[in-house]
Amino acid sequence: MSKFKLVIDCKDQKGIVHSVSEYVSNNNGNIIDSQQYSHGLDSHFFMRLLVDSANFSIKAEDLHNSFSEIAQKFAMRYKFVSKKKRMAILVSKYDHCLYDLLLRKQYGDIDVEIPVIISNHPDLEHVAKSFSIPFEHHAIKYPDGASAEEKLRIKKTQEKGIIDRLKELNIDFLAMARYMQILTPQFIEAFPMKIINVHHGFLPSFKGAKPYHQAYDKGVKIIGATAHYANEDLDMGPIIEQGVIHIDHRDTVEDYISKGRDIEKQVFAQAIKAHSEDKIIVHEGKTLVFD
Amino acid sequence: MSKFKLVIDCKDQKGIVHSVSEYVSNNNGNIIDSQQYSHGLDSHFFMRLLVDSANFSIKAEDLHNSFSEIAQKFAMRYKFVSKKKRMAILVSKYDHCLYDLLLRKQYGDIDVEIPVIISNHPDLEHVAKSFSIPFEHHAIKYPDGASAEEKLRIKKTQEKGIIDRLKELNIDFLAMARYMQILTPQFIEAFPMKIINVHHGFLPSFKGAKPYHQAYDKGVKIIGATAHYANEDLDMGPIIEQGVIHIDHRDTVEDYISKGRDIEKQVFAQAIKAHSEDKIIVHEGKTLVFD
Amino acid sequence: MSKFKLVIDCKDQKGIVHSVSEYVSNNNGNIIDSQQYSHGLDSHFFMRLLVDSANFSIKAEDLHNSFSEIAQKFAMRYKFVSKKKRMAILVSKYDHCLYDLLLRKQYGDIDVEIPVIISNHPDLEHVAKSFSIPFEHHAIKYPDGASAEEKLRIKKTQEKGIIDRLKELNIDFLAMARYMQILTPQFIEAFPMKIINVHHGFLPSFKGAKPYHQAYDKGVKIIGATAHYANEDLDMGPIIEQGVIHIDHRDTVEDYISKGRDIEKQVFAQAIKAHSEDKIIVHEGKTLVFD
Amino acid sequence: MSKFKLVIDCKDQKGIVHSVSEYVSNNNGNIIDSQQYSHGLDSHFFMRLLVDSANFSIKAEDLHNSFSEIAQKFAMRYKFVSKKKRMAILVSKYDHCLYDLLLRKQYGDIDVEIPVIISNHPDLEHVAKSFSIPFEHHAIKYPDGASAEEKLRIKKTQEKGIIDRLKELNIDFLAMARYMQILTPQFIEAFPMKIINVHHGFLPSFKGAKPYHQAYDKGVKIIGATAHYANEDLDMGPIIEQGVIHIDHRDTVEDYISKGRDIEKQVFAQAIKAHSEDKIIVHEGKTLVFD
Repeated sequence: MSKFKLVIDCKDQKGIVHSVSEYVSNNNGNIIDSQQYSHGLDSHFFMRLLVDSANFSIKAEDLHNSFSEIAQKFAMRYKFVSKKKRMAILVSKYDHCLYDLLLRKQYGDIDVEIPVIISNHPDLEHVAKSFSIPFEHHAIKYPDGASAEEKLRIKKTQEKGIIDRLKELNIDFLAMARYMQILTPQFIEAFPMKIINVHHGFLPSFKGAKPYHQAYDKGVKIIGATAHYANEDLDMGPIIEQGVIHIDHRDTVEDYISKGRDIEKQVFAQAIKAHSEDKIIVHEGKTLVFD
Repeated sequence: MSKFKLVIDCKDQKGIVHSVSEYVSNNNGNIIDSQQYSHGLDSHFFMRLLVDSANFSIKAEDLHNSFSEIAQKFAMRYKFVSKKKRMAILVSKYDHCLYDLLLRKQYGDIDVEIPVIISNHPDLEHVAKSFSIPFEHHAIKYPDGASAEEKLRIKKTQEKGIIDRLKELNIDFLAMARYMQILTPQFIEAFPMKIINVHHGFLPSFKGAKPYHQAYDKGVKIIGATAHYANEDLDMGPIIEQGVIHIDHRDTVEDYISKGRDIEKQVFAQAIKAHSEDKIIVHEGKTLVFD
Repeated sequence: MSKFKLVIDCKDQKGIVHSVSEYVSNNNGNIIDSQQYSHGLDSHFFMRLLVDSANFSIKAEDLHNSFSEIAQKFAMRYKFVSKKKRMAILVSKYDHCLYDLLLRKQYGDIDVEIPVIISNHPDLEHVAKSFSIPFEHHAIKYPDGASAEEKLRIKKTQEKGIIDRLKELNIDFLAMARYMQILTPQFIEAFPMKIINVHHGFLPSFKGAKPYHQAYDKGVKIIGATAHYANEDLDMGPIIEQGVIHIDHRDTVEDYISKGRDIEKQVFAQAIKAHSEDKIIVHEGKTLVFD
Repeated sequence: MSKFKLVIDCKDQKGIVHSVSEYVSNNNGNIIDSQQYSHGLDSHFFMRLLVDSANFSIKAEDLHNSFSEIAQKFAMRYKFVSKKKRMAILVSKYDHCLYDLLLRKQYGDIDVEIPVIISNHPDLEHVAKSFSIPFEHHAIKYPDGASAEEKLRIKKTQEKGIIDRLKELNIDFLAMARYMQILTPQFIEAFPMKIINVHHGFLPSFKGAKPYHQAYDKGVKIIGATAHYANEDLDMGPIIEQGVIHIDHRDTVEDYISKGRDIEKQVFAQAIKAHSEDKIIVHEGKTLVFD
C-alpha cells in the first residue's frame, strides 16, 4: 500500500481539520490514522495524518506544492513524508544500544534503512559485519601533549569527515548509540533536531559525565535514562522519552550500569521509532510525541 | 465554555472525517480534541470529538436529529453528550474504592454527579455523610432455612427496589465499588454496558470468589485488578482497564489484599473517568478506550 | 505474640551474626525474620532482626543493657524496639496524603498510633474528626508589614508550641503530609531523622517551590515524588522512597498535580511504613531500607 | 576471593541460624550475604548464605559431609555450591532471548558458562558463532504420513541425543530460549527443576499455543510473559518470574509480539540469573526467589 504522512503545526484556528480533511478527500486519499493536539495554554495546534495514497490524485513530488495554499491560509509549518528514513548509527565501544537497534530493525519494529555505522573506535566492526551493515572507523587521535586548541581542531576535522559522509549517504537522522564524544556546534548545526542521543541519567538530574555515579552518591531510589535531541547545550536538548528502574541500597554502581542498560536501549529505541515515523514535533524547546 | 462530545462508530469508508469536520465547521463549532481509530482487521472506524459549541448554530436538543443524515449515509452508531453524567455508587463494607472515588470527585479528577450511594449494609453511611452524599441502605435478609428459590426472589426484590430508585434519580451509570453481590440478569439488563465493576484479579485469571487466594495458591509473581463492564457472565464482561503489582514469596494473602487495594482503586477510577468522559466504545465484546 | 526488633550497624567483622544469633538463642528467643547487608565499598554491616520473645529470658526494659557487651565488642550502634510507634501528622490544606495515611492505619497496613494531627490551618479538622483523631490548629499569623525578622520570630514561636506538644505526647516521629511550611533548624534538631516529608518532585530534580511547574517547563516525560527525612537543607535530606508516573504532551500542570497525588501518597505511605517498622538505617547521608 | 553458597530449607525450629552461623564462624568463614525466610503458614524455614571461604578450614569437597550433623539435627535439605554453573541454551528460530542471554553473559550480568547452544533448526548457528559458542543442530524430521506413535519415537530419539550430549558436557541447567518443542517426560525427568522455560503469556492465563492471540481475543489491557521451571504439565511448572506491559486497542497481535519480546527476555534473564546464583528454592510447587 502506498502511504504518506502529513505533519502540521500552526496557531489553533477554526476550520483546520475541515480544510485538511477536505484536501485529502478531494484528492481521493483515505485517512488511515489521525492524531491532533491543541495545546491549551498558548493555543498551538499539532496534527499528524497517515493517508492511504494508493489512488491519490497528486504525485509524491507535487504534494508539497499542492498544499501550499492551505498552509499559507493557516500559517502552517508542514511536511509530507513518503519515504523510509535513512538512519546512521554512531557508536564507540558499548554495544548494547547498537545490538538493540539492529535487532529491532531485523524484527521490523523499527522501519528504517541503516546505510552505515560510524565509530571513533574499531572495536564493534564485528557487530556491524554480523548484521551486514557497512562500518566506518573515523578515529580521533590526539598527539601527546596536544593543546586544547589543537585537540579541538583534530576533533572538528574528524567530525567534518563524518558529516561529509553522512551528507553523501543522504542520511536523514542519527542515532547516537552511546557515542562517547561531545559533538561540537558544527555537527549539531549540520543536523538540527536530527541527532538522537541517549543519556544514562534521569534528566535534568545527573547531566554530564558518570551519571550513575552521581545517582549513587545522591542515594536516589530510582535511576533512569533519557533519549533527547542533541542541541548546543550538553544533555539539555528536547527530551523525547524517559524510562526508569528501581534500585536499592544493595545495588552498586556496577549494578546501576547493568540494570540501566535495559532502560537505555528501550527509551532509545522508542525515541528512534517515534522519530522514524514522524511522530515527534519540537515546539518551544519541548517535544510533542504522538503515540 | 459550552462543549459537546460526539462519539461515532461505523464501517470504515472514505470521507468520514471530512463529512464530520464539515458538519462541525459549517455549524460554527471548533474541534478541541479529536481521536479516531480504524480497526485494521475488520475495518471498523471509531471517532470521538470534543467540540467547543459556544457559537454552535444548533441547539443541544436538536443535535441528534441534525446529524442523522450524515449518520445514515455512513450507517453510523453515534451519540452527542453535553451533560455531566450522574453516577450511583454501590458498596458493601469495603471502603477503599468508595473513599477513592469521593476524593477524586472532590479534587475534580472525576467530573460526575453522585446523587446516591447505595449499599446492602448500613456500615458505610458515615463515609457518605462526611462527603454530604445521600446514602440508602437496601438490605437483603434471608430468613433462616430459606430455599435457593426463595433467596433468589428476595434478592430480585431488593434489586428491583434499587433499579427503581436509580431510574427515579436519572442515574446514567453505576460504579460497583466492591459491591459484594452478584447481580441477576434483570439488573444487568436494566443498565447494559453501564455498570462498571472492579474485580481483584488479573482477568481472565482468577475469576469468581477469593481471587487473591487463587493467586497465592498458584504462586504467581504479579497480582492484578481489572475494571470491566458487568454482563451476564460473572467477571467476563468487556475489560476496560487493568493494573498489576509485583509480589514475592514473603507476601501472605493479607499482603495481597493490602497491596491490591492500591491497584483496585486506581484501575477502577481510571475506568470510571474514561466512561464519564465517553471515551469508551464497546465493539464485539471488547473495549476501545481513547486516552 | 510478643516480639522485638533489634537493629544494628557497625564495621563489618567476622562473627557478628554468630554472636547475635547466640545472644538470641541463649536467651530463648526465636528469629522470625532477619535481614542483613554488608556494604561492599566501605565494609559497613547492617542488620535487622525480628525476634519472637514470648519466652525471652530478659525483660523488655533490660534488653538494651543485656546487649551492651556484644555491642562494645563490635563497636555497634544498636537499638531494641518493642513498642508500637507514636506518629504525629502535620498537614496544611491538601488532604490526599492525610486521608491515605488514616485509611492505611484503619486497614492495618501501617501499624502506628496517631495521637494527634496538627495543622497551621483549621480546614482539615473534619477529616481528623471523622477518624476520631485529635486535631490541633497551630496558626501562624503575620501582622501586615511584618519584617522578615519578625516573621521568623512568629514562626519559631508557633514551632515551639508544636514541638512542646509533640514532646508532651511522646511522639516518636512525624509525617509531614504536605505540610506547607519550611521547618526552621530548631524543629529539625528536635526530631533528627524522625521527620518524614513528601516532596512532589523527583529529587534531586525540581527542589523547592512548584516542582510540577518546573517539570512542565523542562518538558520531562516522567514526573515523580520523593519521601525523605527532613534535614537542614530543603528537600535534600536522605531519600527513603521514590515513585514516578509517565506523562505526555497533553498533560497540563493540573494533570501533573492530579496524577502526582497517587504517587505522592504511595511513596509517603511506604516510607512511613518502613520507618514505623524500623526498616530504615541512615548511614553517611543515605538510607538503607530493608524490605 | 573464594566463596561458597549454602542453601538450606527445613521445618522452622529454634536455633537454626545460631547453629549455621556457628558452623561458619568456627570454621573461619565470613558471612557476606544472608537471606532467610520463614514461611508463616506452614512454618517452613529457608536460608541462603554467601560465605567468604578464603580461610575456610574445610576443603570444598568435604563441605557436604562436614555439615551433615547439623543437617540431620534439623532435618534439613541443603546444598553447598562453589562452582560456576554450566548452562546449555535450547533454541529454535526466534533469536531475541538467545541474543539477550549471550549479551548479558558478555557483560557479566549473568555469570555462567555456556558450553553449547542446541537447536532443532540450523538457522541460528551464525549467532552462536559470532559469540564463539559451539552450536549443535539436533533435527527432528518426521517422514510424510508419520503416525503419532512414530513421531513420538522420532522425537524421543532426538531428545535422547540431546540428553546424552548435555550429560556428557556436565550441563547443570537448561535455558529454553523460545525452544518451540514440547519436551516429553523423559527429558523433564532427566533435568528436574533444571529446565527454565519462558512462556509469552501471563500464566496461568493463556497457556499453550499462541498466547498473544488468546490475549488479543480476550481484550486484555496488559500482556505478560512468564519464566518457569518446566515440569510434566505444559506451562504449569513453578513460576519464577513474571513481567507485563500495557497494550491498548490500537495494538495488533503483531504489536503484542513486538512489545512482548522485551518482556520475555527480561523475565527470562532474571530467572536464569536467580537460578545461576542458587537464589531459587522450590517448595510445594511454588518458588521462593531471594533477591
